[in-house]
Amino acid sequence: MENIRTPKVENVRLLDRSSGQRKATVGTLYLSATHTIFVENNPETRKETWLLHSMVSSVERPPTTPAGSPLILRCKDFRVFQILISQERDCLDVQASLVRLSRPEKFSELYCLSFNPNVNKEEREESWTFMDLMADYRRMGVPNNLWLLSAANSEYRVCDTYPSQLFVPKSATPAIIVGSSRFRSRGRFPVLSYFHQDTLAAVCRCSQPLSGFSGRCQEDEMMLQAIMKSNPGSEFIYVVDTRPKLNAMANRAAGKGYENEDHYSNIKLQFIGIENIHVMRSSQQRIIDVGDMRSSSMTDFLWGLENSGWLKHIKAVLDAGVFIARAVADEGVSVLVHCSDGWDRTTQACSVASILLDPFYRTIRGLMVLIERDWVSFGHKFSHRYAHLDGDPKEVSPVIDQFLECVWQLSEQFPCAFQFNERFLIAVHVHVYSCQYANFLGNSEKERRDMRLRQRSHSVWPDLWKDRAQYTNPLFQAEQSQSQGVLRPNTSPYCFKMWKALYNHVDKSTPPHQSPADFLSAVREESQQLEEELTNHQEVPAGGTAHHQAAGSRQEDRRSDGETDPVDRGPGSEED
Amino acid sequence: MENIRTPKVENVRLLDRSSGQRKATVGTLYLSATHTIFVENNPETRKETWLLHSMVSSVERPPTTPAGSPLILRCKDFRVFQILISQERDCLDVQASLVRLSRPEKFSELYCLSFNPNVNKEEREESWTFMDLMADYRRMGVPNNLWLLSAANSEYRVCDTYPSQLFVPKSATPAIIVGSSRFRSRGRFPVLSYFHQDTLAAVCRCSQPLSGFSGRCQEDEMMLQAIMKSNPGSEFIYVVDTRPKLNAMANRAAGKGYENEDHYSNIKLQFIGIENIHVMRSSQQRIIDVGDMRSSSMTDFLWGLENSGWLKHIKAVLDAGVFIARAVADEGVSVLVHCSDGWDRTTQACSVASILLDPFYRTIRGLMVLIERDWVSFGHKFSHRYAHLDGDPKEVSPVIDQFLECVWQLSEQFPCAFQFNERFLIAVHVHVYSCQYANFLGNSEKERRDMRLRQRSHSVWPDLWKDRAQYTNPLFQAEQSQSQGVLRPNTSPYCFKMWKALYNHVDKSTPPHQSPADFLSAVREESQQLEEELTNHQEVPAGGTAHHQAAGSRQEDRRSDGETDPVDRGPGSEED
Repeated sequence: MENIRTPKVENVRLLDRSSGQRKATVGTLYLSATHTIFVENNPETRKETWLLHSMVSSVERPPTTPAGSPLILRCKDFRVFQILISQERDCLDVQASLVRLSRPEKFSELYCLSFNPNVNKEEREESWTFMDLMADYRRMGVPNNLWLLSAANSEYRVCDTYPSQLFVPKSATPAIIVGSSRFRSRGRFPVLSYFHQDTLAAVCRCSQPLSGFSGRCQEDEMMLQAIMKSNPGSEFIYVVDTRPKLNAMANRAAGKGYENEDHYSNIKLQFIGIENIHVMRSSQQRIIDVGDMRSSSMTDFLWGLENSGWLKHIKAVLDAGVFIARAVADEGVSVLVHCSDGWDRTTQACSVASILLDPFYRTIRGLMVLIERDWVSFGHKFSHRYAHLDGDPKEVSPVIDQFLECVWQLSEQFPCAFQFNERFLIAVHVHVYSCQYANFLGNSEKERRDMRLRQRSHSVWPDLWKDRAQYTNPLFQAEQSQSQGVLRPNTSPYCFKMWKALYNHVDKSTPPHQSPADFLSAVREESQQLEEELTNHQEVPAGGTAHHQAAGSRQEDRRSDGETDPVDRGPGSEED
Repeated sequence: MENIRTPKVENVRLLDRSSGQRKATVGTLYLSATHTIFVENNPETRKETWLLHSMVSSVERPPTTPAGSPLILRCKDFRVFQILISQERDCLDVQASLVRLSRPEKFSELYCLSFNPNVNKEEREESWTFMDLMADYRRMGVPNNLWLLSAANSEYRVCDTYPSQLFVPKSATPAIIVGSSRFRSRGRFPVLSYFHQDTLAAVCRCSQPLSGFSGRCQEDEMMLQAIMKSNPGSEFIYVVDTRPKLNAMANRAAGKGYENEDHYSNIKLQFIGIENIHVMRSSQQRIIDVGDMRSSSMTDFLWGLENSGWLKHIKAVLDAGVFIARAVADEGVSVLVHCSDGWDRTTQACSVASILLDPFYRTIRGLMVLIERDWVSFGHKFSHRYAHLDGDPKEVSPVIDQFLECVWQLSEQFPCAFQFNERFLIAVHVHVYSCQYANFLGNSEKERRDMRLRQRSHSVWPDLWKDRAQYTNPLFQAEQSQSQGVLRPNTSPYCFKMWKALYNHVDKSTPPHQSPADFLSAVREESQQLEEELTNHQEVPAGGTAHHQAAGSRQEDRRSDGETDPVDRGPGSEED
């Protein structure tokens, strides 16, 4: 524990700014290897606040005042804690310790490698079998006579950021695959993301072609032709370049770029205009600032919201998904999606399209599968984007934040279409950043396999699944029209709003307003009681229980309560 | 019917822009004394669109094109109809007729005096007894030993814009009343608006004092003292001037202004800063334009929203109500509210405060009573503000629109606290403008009495009450905590949003998304069925039926369907 300069400081004042707390509480601050722990002096409550080091994004030290030396901790879930320490010496020690602890330099320092819940080896190993991507491919109908499982990348030799198991068009020979991969940035050749059984159209993904101003590649052209041929009814495919056209053109100077429609037969090129990771990083910083404003005027708020550009970017990501979903579902045309390297905007666009196209991904288990497939298996750079290790700040960007927010905006527009509530989306968001579980470690499947993470850590999915009662949206009913088929959202600007629960922690102090969802839970419970009484008196009518699957779901907002946050206080973590 | 230059034009193209319709339909246009009626040629549908003349706010005629002569009808409920007439001659005739028909010059021309539903004289007279304001005063506990019913204004001699029946503090003698009224703009002396039984504090209302820079009035000072004395536990009263302080100061030059705290003992003056009717009129025009934008970018939308200033004004009105409600409920201090003449901003602030303070006003019947008391009886100038007659356009302003929107914003924040849904608020909005019923005619109780409206027309309240099933919010439960006691809303800027159903008619064409409320209705119905089955088998457990009062409420959006709109097609109106 050489990183902890002082394990305990007394008479510390803590203000949880993000919870809207107005008065600081006095207590003792402890630094463990994994958590900052604050225990209130008040003997009646002795309230504990646990904060995981990996959730701290910055540690600021404003000038010392007569009252003491302050520290401001900003967290990756946008909470802000203000600490006042009487002795400047102690404050400097705490600061230096936290800066070091919150920026691990090696994977071996990450929390998931010391997180030790009370389960045995078998249970841990079993936690990794919870997710079965191949089962989902079978569910969507592949392999079939159009799409085959390819062994080409089984040893990560064709593309080291792709998964070992990939689906490609039936007519794509190994030669075509290898040739196409040489003509694509980072070797990320076109592969299947989602197959739509209703229309036989597919969503495929890749990276930009290395075409420069005039280059071409026969195998790559054959690969796109193969994708088209794998959709019997269609005479062309869409190639969706999710970048602004100017950015795509600029890439040509570096020997990259986009497909030349003259070289490929029967493709239609479509640019969407999602901005790059740097634009998104600074936009999110501005929306966080808007969420932080306490007593802003309407003008400041609306101007801040507009100026952040955040909702414009969310709309762009959603628009990309809508374009793809419409092409696949309404036109029956397959779509090949790419951006530059095909691991950020492409991932966003493909996964939003899947959410719109397939009701399964709108269930709790379905969203887990979707993230595991489009994000984890396809080599989204979690380690770099979410700053798991001390590294290049320019690699950091809220790419998955935007995906989760698109899902949230959709759930606001279709309140009965999603099995999960926003607490589930926020829990996923927290775990992407927390490193309590190893699911989101590293930048690719190969990296995770090389680190032997499955042998050394736990998977988050079974634990989230165990808590599904609190993540369930009681308005969801699988049989409802809204829960079936393709979602066709309205993406007019007035349909988007700021995600209060994520960015406006300020609200947390006001008494919780009862939501329609909570209310429905109560009605459902009552309804179930009646039904049970009825059962005691007669046979239940056929199908009579089908509507009550969500009854009994608990609705406390666990997140607003520091002590019960699953990340802040993992079992076993106290021993460190 | 001298105003109708042409009663029928064939081969007219109609585009209901506000319903998101993209293709015009061809049909025949009829002009009756009360309605514009469009009947589609399509023999299968023969769809009819009825538009009440009094709902038309402007008739524009863009230049004639080769396709024909266009007319654009903008309505007071923000719908927009585009008409194309082949012959310019016909177009000019329709325009001239509509301009005249939509701007009646005399009360006798208003629709309510020709509206003749199929009811007899007794039923018509009974419709006016539906609303009993004195019963509501008794409900809130007055008269009592603090507040008395005053006969001073029984013949409208003290204040001709006030009701004949008024409650004043017990110690306010006729001399004090008359003296105070002479010192108040338009004679509108301080009277009771709402009495809060829990704390014995009261909300009172008046107009600005005629104090100029130094004037004072002993009776007026005694009147405020009397208000304070009518609240036994309190040592001062708040005087809430709802205007921006600068505006209030400017009024002093005209011999008006605000109370001098040196002259009145124990008052605390508070300015709120609601802007005047001219600012509000032009702000609403800008928010209407934002709602009209079809393919706007996020930047255009947010900039337009900010630039309109509309939500800022809504927040100001709500803030006024919140200040008053807090003073009355939390501090137990009485509040005297005024603006300039005490019939616009004062009405808004008092009625919002009542909504926050008293759950009764959050029911369907309660909102009717509240509007009847604070708006109708206290002399809000309906005729001038909502342009019932051709008159001074500078008198027009969306004062009650803002009140209804405050209630809507509250209902979004407290989805279980209101018995009514937004359809009810929109129905009230339509009737304020439509003049189908006489409730909102004229500018005061005296004017309505002088016109003998009760003998010649119908009241809207019983008809709205008959339709209450479609106006019921299924999330409302009278026993719920949210439905009881004082509402304490969060008025941070991010808690306000654009009222889509009122301003974004554009949305109407998209398939209706199932709302949680509709869904709850279905669950409730199912729950009720179960309960009925149970009843057939055993005794219902005590209290088992209490939760199902709203079951069976219908949820179609009648408003989006031109034919069934209660205003567009009143029974009996076809004969004209």
